[in-house]
Amino acid sequence: MARYPRAIETALAELSRLPGIGRRGAERIITHLLDRPGEDAARLSRALGDLASAVRLCGVCGNWSEGELCAVCSDPARETDRLCVVERVPDIYAFEASGAFPGRYHVLGGVLSPLAGVTPEDLRLDELEARVTGQGIREVVIATGTTVEGDATAMYISRILTPRGVEVTRMGLGIPMGASLGYADAGTIRASLEARRRIAG
Amino acid sequence: MARYPRAIETALAELSRLPGIGRRGAERIITHLLDRPGEDAARLSRALGDLASAVRLCGVCGNWSEGELCAVCSDPARETDRLCVVERVPDIYAFEASGAFPGRYHVLGGVLSPLAGVTPEDLRLDELEARVTGQGIREVVIATGTTVEGDATAMYISRILTPRGVEVTRMGLGIPMGASLGYADAGTIRASLEARRRIAG
Repeated sequence: MARYPRAIETALAELSRLPGIGRRGAERIITHLLDRPGEDAARLSRALGDLASAVRLCGVCGNWSEGELCAVCSDPARETDRLCVVERVPDIYAFEASGAFPGRYHVLGGVLSPLAGVTPEDLRLDELEARVTGQGIREVVIATGTTVEGDATAMYISRILTPRGVEVTRMGLGIPMGASLGYADAGTIRASLEARRRIAG
Repeated sequence: MARYPRAIETALAELSRLPGIGRRGAERIITHLLDRPGEDAARLSRALGDLASAVRLCGVCGNWSEGELCAVCSDPARETDRLCVVERVPDIYAFEASGAFPGRYHVLGGVLSPLAGVTPEDLRLDELEARVTGQGIREVVIATGTTVEGDATAMYISRILTPRGVEVTRMGLGIPMGASLGYADAGTIRASLEARRRIAG
C-alpha cells in the first residue's frame, strides 16, 4: 500500500494543480482537513462548488461577478469614458479600496511573456480593442505591474490604442507611501526623482 | 464594491484557513480556478467532497482509510509486535515506499511543542499507551522528526512506555543517502561519525 486511498489520490492531484501548491503542500492541506472532524473538507468543498456555479467573469470587463455584468460595469454612476487595464481581478479590488478611480476596468488575464509562452492571443486584448473602438473611451490607464513584462505589455497596448485617438497613460512610478527610502531600488529612486513635485510652504 | 461577490468571499475565507495559504494565496488560487471554464473549481469541489465523505482516520492507528481499519492494520501479513510512531499520515507512506518496516504504525498528529501550545492531550498518546498495554508489542520505533520538539516527544514517549517493558528505539541519525557531506550540519556529522560502521573489504 505505497499508494494513498483513491479519494486521497484524487484530492492530491487536484490540489497539486493549484498555483503555489506542490505535492507536499497538498499533503499538508489534506492532513489539516482530515485532522478535523470531517466538517472542514465538506465546507471547503461546498464553498468551491458555489464558486463554480455562482461566479462567472463579467461579460464586459472580466471582473468576477454573480450576474452577467459585474458590480462596476452595472453601476450607472461610474464614468464610461475612462478604462483602467489590470492584470488580474484582485487588482480591481486594490483600486476600489483606494476609491481613487471613477472609471471602469478591463482585466487582461496576465501580461505578455515570451519566456512563459504568453502571447497577445492569451490576453483579453481583442476585447479591449473592441471596447475602445467607437464607445467614446478617452483615456486608458494601464496598471500592469512595473516589471519588464508589465512594461512591455503597456507599450504593446499603447501601440494598438494610441492610433485610435485614445490617450494611453501608465501609473506613475515613485516611492510607495509609508516606505523607507533605504529600501527603494535605484530605478525607483530615479523615477521618483523625475516625478518630484514642489511642495506648498 | 470594495468587497468581492459573496461566493468569492466564502471561498477566500475557507482557502485562507488552509496551512501555507494566506489571503494572497487564496486570491491567486481563485483567479486560477475562475480563469478556466468552470470545470476546475467544480472538479476540485467534487474531489474534496469525496474526501470528506469517503475518507476517515483508521480506528487503530490514525492512518487515512476508506474503511474502519486502514490497509496496514487490516493486513494479516504485517508484524503485530512492532509499532512505528510517526507525526503525520504522509510519514507512513514514506516508510511504506522504503519497504523497510514490516510492523504497524501509530500516528501522533504532531509533536509536543509548548511554544505552539501542543500538549500531550493534543496528541494520540493515550491511544498509543492503550495499544501497547497488553497487546504483545515488543518494540516501538519513534520516527518523529529530528528537531528539538521531535526529540522531546520521543523522550516523553520513552518515559511512558519503557516502564511497561517495551523496547523504545529512535531512528538512527546520519548522512542522508545521495547527500554531499558539505551540506551536512555539525550535529549530523557528529551523530553520523558516532554511528560509523566497519565496511567489508
